[in-house]
Amino acid sequence: MARKNAFYAQSGGVTAVINASAAGVIEAARANKDVIGKVYAGRNGIIGALTEELIDTSKESKSAIEALKYTPGGAFGSCRYKLKDLKTSQREYERLIEVFKAHNIGYFFYNGGGDSADTCLKVSQLSEKMGYPIQAIHVPKTVDNDLPFTDVSPGFGSVAKYTAVSCREAALDVASMCATSTKVFVMEVMGRHAGWIAAAAGLAKEEADDAPHLILFPEIAFDKAAFMKKVEATVKKVGYCVIVVSEGARYEDGTFLADAGTTDAFGHKQLGGVAPVIAQMVKDELGYKYHWAVSDYLQRAARHIGSATDMEQAYAVGRAAVEFAVAGKNAVMPTVERKKTKKYSWTIGEAPLKKVANVEKAMPRKFISKDGFGITPSAREYLLPLIGGESYPPYKDGLPQFAKLKLVPVAKKLNDVFEV
Amino acid sequence: MARKNAFYAQSGGVTAVINASAAGVIEAARANKDVIGKVYAGRNGIIGALTEELIDTSKESKSAIEALKYTPGGAFGSCRYKLKDLKTSQREYERLIEVFKAHNIGYFFYNGGGDSADTCLKVSQLSEKMGYPIQAIHVPKTVDNDLPFTDVSPGFGSVAKYTAVSCREAALDVASMCATSTKVFVMEVMGRHAGWIAAAAGLAKEEADDAPHLILFPEIAFDKAAFMKKVEATVKKVGYCVIVVSEGARYEDGTFLADAGTTDAFGHKQLGGVAPVIAQMVKDELGYKYHWAVSDYLQRAARHIGSATDMEQAYAVGRAAVEFAVAGKNAVMPTVERKKTKKYSWTIGEAPLKKVANVEKAMPRKFISKDGFGITPSAREYLLPLIGGESYPPYKDGLPQFAKLKLVPVAKKLNDVFEV
Repeated sequence: MARKNAFYAQSGGVTAVINASAAGVIEAARANKDVIGKVYAGRNGIIGALTEELIDTSKESKSAIEALKYTPGGAFGSCRYKLKDLKTSQREYERLIEVFKAHNIGYFFYNGGGDSADTCLKVSQLSEKMGYPIQAIHVPKTVDNDLPFTDVSPGFGSVAKYTAVSCREAALDVASMCATSTKVFVMEVMGRHAGWIAAAAGLAKEEADDAPHLILFPEIAFDKAAFMKKVEATVKKVGYCVIVVSEGARYEDGTFLADAGTTDAFGHKQLGGVAPVIAQMVKDELGYKYHWAVSDYLQRAARHIGSATDMEQAYAVGRAAVEFAVAGKNAVMPTVERKKTKKYSWTIGEAPLKKVANVEKAMPRKFISKDGFGITPSAREYLLPLIGGESYPPYKDGLPQFAKLKLVPVAKKLNDVFEV
Repeated sequence: MARKNAFYAQSGGVTAVINASAAGVIEAARANKDVIGKVYAGRNGIIGALTEELIDTSKESKSAIEALKYTPGGAFGSCRYKLKDLKTSQREYERLIEVFKAHNIGYFFYNGGGDSADTCLKVSQLSEKMGYPIQAIHVPKTVDNDLPFTDVSPGFGSVAKYTAVSCREAALDVASMCATSTKVFVMEVMGRHAGWIAAAAGLAKEEADDAPHLILFPEIAFDKAAFMKKVEATVKKVGYCVIVVSEGARYEDGTFLADAGTTDAFGHKQLGGVAPVIAQMVKDELGYKYHWAVSDYLQRAARHIGSATDMEQAYAVGRAAVEFAVAGKNAVMPTVERKKTKKYSWTIGEAPLKKVANVEKAMPRKFISKDGFGITPSAREYLLPLIGGESYPPYKDGLPQFAKLKLVPVAKKLNDVFEV
């Protein structure tokens, strides 16, 4: 087999462990030097391929690549740039092949969610059509946990762990002050379409009266009366109430709670955030003193409390992608497969991109309790192993030491400017 | 010396390490059984003393008390209940002495901030007057870092560490997405009166272009024009801009930015939070896509990323309080004294409550950079050691295992109900 270079790009919202996948790709490629030449990373994701802004990862030291396992964010830059179908985005797809050809790239590793799985598939299809062979492998990643065929999307386990840990901690704070101060604490988490992250907060609960007392899922239409009833009953019984709300929480008609509460008839601008809306609603209805938190990017960047399981899986799918390529595979995605063992264990599986692309995995209704405000034992059984183990970054002077890459650009070979 | 019992109470907003002080008090008392009988904790702070709701800490196991070192929140409950001067609150002070007398309490350990130092002093004064001797020792605690005479207020180091770590992490997320997505990220931190916590975020910065790019302190009147200019210049130079804002950020006239932005002429209710106000202001003026976070209680409960230095100091002031009492001292507070060594080191000092009570330590102006948007090298020199070392709680199944106390009540001896 003639030695070809590889292209790696990060796509969409980043996670606490997407760089662990990058480390997996780069380390596995280095271990297969007879087949794979250099790994070029796209600066700011796929845009870097379109504009021919490639980063030569061979210039990075072994320890710098190792440090990627502990570094949040996207080390090479990511982007939200969706390539559509082959006809609509024909210009972009052809440009990709052109750049790949110019740099002798025969492997395309695309690290992202559902959209990028689709792009990955199309690159593989087009390369066949254009007679320039590219093996396109998708590396799964998303905090949203909505990729199909894989037991979990790498990136989810760490945000889940952050959420469960933070909820348990904050609840202790509220509990200790509730006699004279805050009675209701609202914590907003990510998840516009699915309540996976909100569900993970449920892991904080051990006993019936523990927090979180209510979880608001996007999957369950908000029922204000039932909600208020449960909040009041909780404060009366437990003394305080911790509510976890998904940013995607919505009314029966699909309106987001966040939207409904923060714009008004006078056209005042939306300040955003569903947590303050819920908090104010409780105050208005029940009169309880409240506090609220919106952790936003902090939750998906919180590498300091990363899940060891998640980190290992993110790394493993990166490695597996390269091993698949070396084995001659194309248009596939490595998956995490949960083994049917009593003690949680997993292995790497494989899914064809044709089946993966643009399919969203929803959270099963059986994961949400009957009243719609909590998680079930089966949700707990699924979620708990994903936050297992603590993967701490190294510290110096009290601060985490993250990877510092040289990000050496690859000399351009095409003499044109491609506008994105 | 006749053996007397001790009373311990937590006061005001809790911290990630206030329970480490409780552990210090209880362990030191257990080590001085010849002098100190039982340690009774006030349920919900001083209110527990007034209502005679005492918790018998002698019923707690050695390992449960040890676990307090790793447990956030206030294990016995805290409260916001300010005793005023001896005349105004005469009824309460007398009641305290009455309850202490009934339970043979000769030592009063009060774990709180400036207000509780004052209460502590008054209890000591009144006990003399009433001829019932109480040695009152104040145990310093507050995330606000505003206690005088001590180099640092235990509790501050951990929230400082959380803030610096979270800022560094989130900045990596923003940096990796800024080409096509969020350009401005606003992170709100606690500190209504002083910018200590906001200043700590400045520790995340290593190089000139690192985050945070702007810090908004309560100490510096908000200058919108200068602010916008710097935000725009930062986005143009660095590609993105991370802003840390103290909840106490205010205009020249003293109005909080949070207030100004979230109530309007139509009387629409305040949703709270200065972060969304700043974010929206930037969007309106400069058009940048933004995200914002408000970590609220998460920051002061974040025991999972506690500062080892802070934990050790919180524990040490608890121990020292008991040792002071055993040595016959009264109306004093153990302090953290920074030694004049090259490598950071500290010891326990002592301050008389007469000097401590109701004095607030402000952040020195020399800690804030000339332009008002950053911290100086002298601030860094002061702050950095306080976040030194990682004190991780133990984990099981991916979740931190916090203390579970029995909280056995002490049988009441007074036959009356005291209304608080």
